[in-house]
Amino acid sequence: MSVPDAVRAGMQETNDRFCREAIGGGDLSALNGIYTANARVLPPGAPIVEGLEAIKGFWQGAIAGLGLTGATLTTVSVEMCGESAVEIGHAELSVRDGVVIKGKYIVHWKEQDGGWRWDKDIWNAD
Amino acid sequence: MSVPDAVRAGMQETNDRFCREAIGGGDLSALNGIYTANARVLPPGAPIVEGLEAIKGFWQGAIAGLGLTGATLTTVSVEMCGESAVEIGHAELSVRDGVVIKGKYIVHWKEQDGGWRWDKDIWNAD
Repeated sequence: MSVPDAVRAGMQETNDRFCREAIGGGDLSALNGIYTANARVLPPGAPIVEGLEAIKGFWQGAIAGLGLTGATLTTVSVEMCGESAVEIGHAELSVRDGVVIKGKYIVHWKEQDGGWRWDKDIWNAD
Repeated sequence: MSVPDAVRAGMQETNDRFCREAIGGGDLSALNGIYTANARVLPPGAPIVEGLEAIKGFWQGAIAGLGLTGATLTTVSVEMCGESAVEIGHAELSVRDGVVIKGKYIVHWKEQDGGWRWDKDIWNAD
């Protein structure tokens, strides 16, 4: 099903906030507006992380551990699935020593509290 | 949304076929009944693989390259999203020298030609 422009814009806004505020700005409180309350993150090299508070801890650890300072997300495709949406994208993570990790992701999106948010988030390196 | 029993059974049948026939039995033609025609696979360490024929080539390479001889898939959660479904699960892949790679996955499922099939498939190691 095609994606309404307003939904696409809401998703882009969330992706931009993740890159600019949460990772680029190191402001983990921005994740409140990015993930759903019961979101799950499936990160490479670690078990499933469940719930917004645990997810904040995960990204805090990634910022400190990897020296993560920047993220770029580029949508490859998105489709509506009932009231939710499934996105495939490319990601670039800038970490310590100028290294850029290139990868890809799937996000299952849901609308919550008036915004489009990541409910399930998984990625891996290319 | 809760998942009807018939859908759950159809998904389980597909997962079982993947483990038993495609990987356990090395029968790549079984993938015809597992992935949708335009499915995409996002494997760790490689770019996106698109379309059933390319996906067969990917798994053929994984069987030969990794010495992949067995797979176990365990559903953690599944939810209906319109006419499709999103599953989170745990995977164990048995590869060369008795090594078992433990990981997790997200599959976006669609019904096609009367069966439940993987339309988008991504995983990573724990």
